[in-house]
Amino acid sequence: MEIGFVGLGKMGMNMVTRLRRGNGHRVVACDRVPELIAKAEETGAVGAASLEELVATLARPRIVWVMVPSGLPTEDTIRTLGELLEPDDVIVDGGNTQFHDDVRRAATLKDQRIHYVDAGTSGGIWGLEVGYCLMVGGDHDVVNRIAPILTTLAPEDGWARVGGHGAGHYVKMVHNGIEYSMMQSYAEGFELMSRSDYKLDLFNIADLWMHGSVVRSWLLELGASTLKEDPTLKGLQGYVHDSGEGRWMLMDALDKDVPVPTLSAALFTRFRSRQDEPFSEKMLAALRRAFGGHSVRRK
Amino acid sequence: MEIGFVGLGKMGMNMVTRLRRGNGHRVVACDRVPELIAKAEETGAVGAASLEELVATLARPRIVWVMVPSGLPTEDTIRTLGELLEPDDVIVDGGNTQFHDDVRRAATLKDQRIHYVDAGTSGGIWGLEVGYCLMVGGDHDVVNRIAPILTTLAPEDGWARVGGHGAGHYVKMVHNGIEYSMMQSYAEGFELMSRSDYKLDLFNIADLWMHGSVVRSWLLELGASTLKEDPTLKGLQGYVHDSGEGRWMLMDALDKDVPVPTLSAALFTRFRSRQDEPFSEKMLAALRRAFGGHSVRRK
Repeated sequence: MEIGFVGLGKMGMNMVTRLRRGNGHRVVACDRVPELIAKAEETGAVGAASLEELVATLARPRIVWVMVPSGLPTEDTIRTLGELLEPDDVIVDGGNTQFHDDVRRAATLKDQRIHYVDAGTSGGIWGLEVGYCLMVGGDHDVVNRIAPILTTLAPEDGWARVGGHGAGHYVKMVHNGIEYSMMQSYAEGFELMSRSDYKLDLFNIADLWMHGSVVRSWLLELGASTLKEDPTLKGLQGYVHDSGEGRWMLMDALDKDVPVPTLSAALFTRFRSRQDEPFSEKMLAALRRAFGGHSVRRK
Repeated sequence: MEIGFVGLGKMGMNMVTRLRRGNGHRVVACDRVPELIAKAEETGAVGAASLEELVATLARPRIVWVMVPSGLPTEDTIRTLGELLEPDDVIVDGGNTQFHDDVRRAATLKDQRIHYVDAGTSGGIWGLEVGYCLMVGGDHDVVNRIAPILTTLAPEDGWARVGGHGAGHYVKMVHNGIEYSMMQSYAEGFELMSRSDYKLDLFNIADLWMHGSVVRSWLLELGASTLKEDPTLKGLQGYVHDSGEGRWMLMDALDKDVPVPTLSAALFTRFRSRQDEPFSEKMLAALRRAFGGHSVRRK
């Protein structure tokens, strides 16, 4: 079928490639960067230099998949598309949007009789080959309309409508929160093993665990590859970003009085990884000196 | 080859079955429970009613795999075997022993020229079909001697010598600590989703995540099966045991000044799950009343 695609970054470009490869869907591809449009055209996609051109090129009723950074870029793109599109067109937000925003946007667009679907997309750079796991929120009939696209993007049984507006991004948010905690689980274990007197071969252990152990997982497989290339991680800084889902999950847990101790630990470990000289740790040293006369390290 | 097997519980019986099935090793099987010996004999193993009989039945140099509950039962079994066995025999401890105990035992047995191997065994009740992931500690030549047994028990590439005495159980300990944190990661996510207004189908989501998502894992596969049978977990109590490895890993982290926040959270969540009326929470309520006049719930 025909789809417009906005955002040709790492994820977007791979998804356009998969759509072109898979069932040869007609894709009209748009980005602010002309080079990325040219690259998309190499897959057989039709380039569009602006959202106006994208909308003009697509036949009605249109489907436009938005795959731009979360927050303002997504908000702006969807607002502009809302002004350009016509009744019965569909906007799919495939990025990492907070589910409250989906609910608000869907309501606003509904006034213009434009449909909105939120599609939480997992799979990272491996999705091109493996397929993307897609968690989809929106009205049944609209989701059914875009099913051929979802089926091409996902591996077999790899997409599902999980609920109404926002449900897709809600489930993706929890998915990412679990991902943070799982990553932290492995990270702690491997750090401890790296400090063992046994001089353990961490790559061999990660690889061994992939064969029949209880902790085997796709993340562990990635961990093994990483440790194979750089067994002591000497080429890396332990500086860890987050793209928001972990903190949104924590906020949702606070809304619902649900304890999420490993999520908190994993998220706060990321925050700590970005601090050079945390005020809190200086404060701890100062307090320890104050009540116990314990020595401090001065600058 | 020939091996003696002590302990025919869930794990032990399955391992004997796999050894008999696989390459038809000669197995002499021993347990305190006569019915379990009879069951092992159905696999073609030779029953032995006592450790004395087991040792008398095996040809020298003997290999005896001990698969009994960790702690005292393992300690007693290995001490008795140490008295019965002869120079160049091998004891393999396949249970969940704390690595410090392995180091001590290996040294004691060495005086009697009896060899000791620690084999951390992962795979649970699924190991019978899939094979057990085996993390092995001990001298190179001794481990090589028992390699045919390890190869039959493990899936392909599913066993490795990871270091000297205790290293196998050390790596298994960290494996289990990671397992606790991973389980807790999923548990928090699914609890939060169970409380969502979206009325999410948790089985469908777990199953969906198995197809291309970043959090796909063997534990998630088990989680999906569980949720398929009982989507609201109404048939279960949230009472969670631990068999020691998590706390040993925490102790090791304390020895080495390594922060393990998700392990701590996961372990302490298990502790909390076994408390009916924690003193700490009454204390919190009392303190909150004391400084702020906040109401308390009386018994």
